[in-house]
Amino acid sequence: MNRKRLAPGELPPGVADLFFHAAEQKLALEATLRDRFTRWGYRPVIPPTFEYAETLASEAGVRLAEEMYRFFDRDGRALALRPDLTIPTARIVGVKLFDQPLPLRFYYIGNVFRYEEPRAGKRREFTQAGVELIGAAEASADAEVIALLVDALQAAGLTDFRITLGQIGFFRGLLAALSLSAEAAERLRIAVDRRSQAELEAILADLDGDDRAREAIAALPMLAGGPEVLDEAARVALSGEMEAAVVNLRQVWERLRQYDVTDHIVLDLAQVRGMAYYTGILFEAFAPGVGFPLASGGRYDGLIGHFGPDQPAVGFALTVDRLLTALDHQAAAETAPLIDVIFQDCGHMECLSLVRRARSLGARAALDVLGRSVDDLMAYAREQGISRVALCEGPGRVRLMMETGSRVIEAAAWEEEVRTWIG
Amino acid sequence: MNRKRLAPGELPPGVADLFFHAAEQKLALEATLRDRFTRWGYRPVIPPTFEYAETLASEAGVRLAEEMYRFFDRDGRALALRPDLTIPTARIVGVKLFDQPLPLRFYYIGNVFRYEEPRAGKRREFTQAGVELIGAAEASADAEVIALLVDALQAAGLTDFRITLGQIGFFRGLLAALSLSAEAAERLRIAVDRRSQAELEAILADLDGDDRAREAIAALPMLAGGPEVLDEAARVALSGEMEAAVVNLRQVWERLRQYDVTDHIVLDLAQVRGMAYYTGILFEAFAPGVGFPLASGGRYDGLIGHFGPDQPAVGFALTVDRLLTALDHQAAAETAPLIDVIFQDCGHMECLSLVRRARSLGARAALDVLGRSVDDLMAYAREQGISRVALCEGPGRVRLMMETGSRVIEAAAWEEEVRTWIG
Repeated sequence: MNRKRLAPGELPPGVADLFFHAAEQKLALEATLRDRFTRWGYRPVIPPTFEYAETLASEAGVRLAEEMYRFFDRDGRALALRPDLTIPTARIVGVKLFDQPLPLRFYYIGNVFRYEEPRAGKRREFTQAGVELIGAAEASADAEVIALLVDALQAAGLTDFRITLGQIGFFRGLLAALSLSAEAAERLRIAVDRRSQAELEAILADLDGDDRAREAIAALPMLAGGPEVLDEAARVALSGEMEAAVVNLRQVWERLRQYDVTDHIVLDLAQVRGMAYYTGILFEAFAPGVGFPLASGGRYDGLIGHFGPDQPAVGFALTVDRLLTALDHQAAAETAPLIDVIFQDCGHMECLSLVRRARSLGARAALDVLGRSVDDLMAYAREQGISRVALCEGPGRVRLMMETGSRVIEAAAWEEEVRTWIG
Repeated sequence: MNRKRLAPGELPPGVADLFFHAAEQKLALEATLRDRFTRWGYRPVIPPTFEYAETLASEAGVRLAEEMYRFFDRDGRALALRPDLTIPTARIVGVKLFDQPLPLRFYYIGNVFRYEEPRAGKRREFTQAGVELIGAAEASADAEVIALLVDALQAAGLTDFRITLGQIGFFRGLLAALSLSAEAAERLRIAVDRRSQAELEAILADLDGDDRAREAIAALPMLAGGPEVLDEAARVALSGEMEAAVVNLRQVWERLRQYDVTDHIVLDLAQVRGMAYYTGILFEAFAPGVGFPLASGGRYDGLIGHFGPDQPAVGFALTVDRLLTALDHQAAAETAPLIDVIFQDCGHMECLSLVRRARSLGARAALDVLGRSVDDLMAYAREQGISRVALCEGPGRVRLMMETGSRVIEAAAWEEEVRTWIG
């Protein structure tokens, strides 16, 4: 193989060194998460870093199994670095703890390893902190782990995040009612996952199903929002399985309302990722500044039975490194905005004069030198915590876009306006 | 390969699951160690779990390199699970932190991986907690890490432990003065490591050296104890290098006396393990109930220079799992002894009558049903915290062996004796 020589001490792609403040920050976050999990009655589980590949692959699903780092023990058996901690925990419960009083509440904080093409935020070694609530099939158990996730994220200091919550039974029921081929079912799943109206319409055009089925499919991408989507979901449900999924989700939502965390929850019946694994609710947490889910979880009543007596189970795994990124992003956004206004660069001398007068009054006024579109400029301002964007409405006349709405300001009123910003 | 089928969920040898109390205990111990390291001004370093095998093997020495778990990245490069955390820390310092103000104080707590034949206490995955003090060549730096080790072990709750402290320069100087072949030098090193008088005498018989050299070699295994051994070591030193080692050790000892930790330290000039690695002091910590060192460390001024500018460095690595074993052993020994006396099983009816009378008075009296030798029985009693061993001195007459000495008790005085035990 023709490869460049390694620089001394070069690291492989996808892994990192942490030291000084970054290491301290991570350890402090882990301690906070540990503390929250403990307060909810969860106890630690520490599985080995590697074990037999066939144990880890058994239920991991094709994608996770392909991503495992495999190697050989000296007796020739295939080992693998754990790609998650849910499967080892399920193994421990199934093999060693099947006679324990239920429910069992476990948490873990540990590193997992997946061979992935390095992209932003995708490491090959990363730290997961998660919980598993085992032996309870009720909606209250579903709601507990979601409420615990909210509590953990808040304890970590994250304020702006949302959790999308679905129920795989709704989509499973739809597939069953349609009696699609496996291939057509997967095509539908991908279209729903992408919320692609065009792909869905193409599928509908090929479909023999009756009008109710067509209506249910077409409705799916719209079934996202507050509890009102459950009424609509119940209306389009084609079967007992679909109705049961809606009832379950209604119960979970009601419980989350009691936990007072629904501000962070968005119901989403079109959430269909991880279908091979989950058997009930499924959810993902997102925060600004991180392109991948911070956490994902759901109910997987079929996993523990692979290793011992069947047990219902629900849990989540939070990626600590991504949470750190979200917290960094939030800290950057929370620092006092360094810029009071950013101007679209229209080229009018009269508009440039507004910029100059703002500066002379003591305001921090910047010009967009990248020629961004209005949307991009607005997105940039939001991301940077810049509270005003000035869009040209003609020479010396700007529309000030603010969080609270927009106003057109004439040149004559400009100084008065600027003085209100700088107190 | 002909192999038995894995049981569902079977673990590979040398790795373990921890959960419930055992997991909590380990996390609590790690938190305690982290706290101590932090109080001494050490900051965390978190290297990746795996990196390029050639980086890890570069300075690991033949044995550690052979024990590494190796596997391949998808680009064909050889990776390995870290067999220790000193080498990755040295890499980080050499490559990334060479321009930082000195000294640098780092600690780590993380898992390491070594392929070893499973024996009692030898795992293939285990947790190391350690420190590295980088950029200080002084005896005060040597003393700091030893005093920190004492503090950490005490904070963990361990009371009974000893640290053997040597200086590899003394033995290196001896080898240099003798101009031995590499083979003869290694033979000598092994004999010294084993403290084998017979092997040493065989080596001395083959040796051409002068009387002073012979005297130094013969003295080596005896150079263990308190600071008085330094006088003897100085007396037999053959060269400036040997004298410098003794001076360094005297300075370290003096500093450890100021730290008030010399109760736990045993000087040992015959400590010659890890010679390939260490360049100055070297030490190991031991505790009852654990057959391997709890911790080992020393000065390694040549390691960081492999990755960047040379730096003096001293540190230790403590095996958390072994410390847990030592703490368990101590807790078992500290529980009130459940047996007041254990009798040698002599078969005399009159002696058995003493056992019966002790029991009827309320004492807890056991008979050794394994027919152990006196030495084995005494060792067993010590280990189990049994405070009296009754050895037969003829029918109805026993010698009571106690920590404070021994006494012969006649049958007539037996009841009076037993009453003193049970208060």
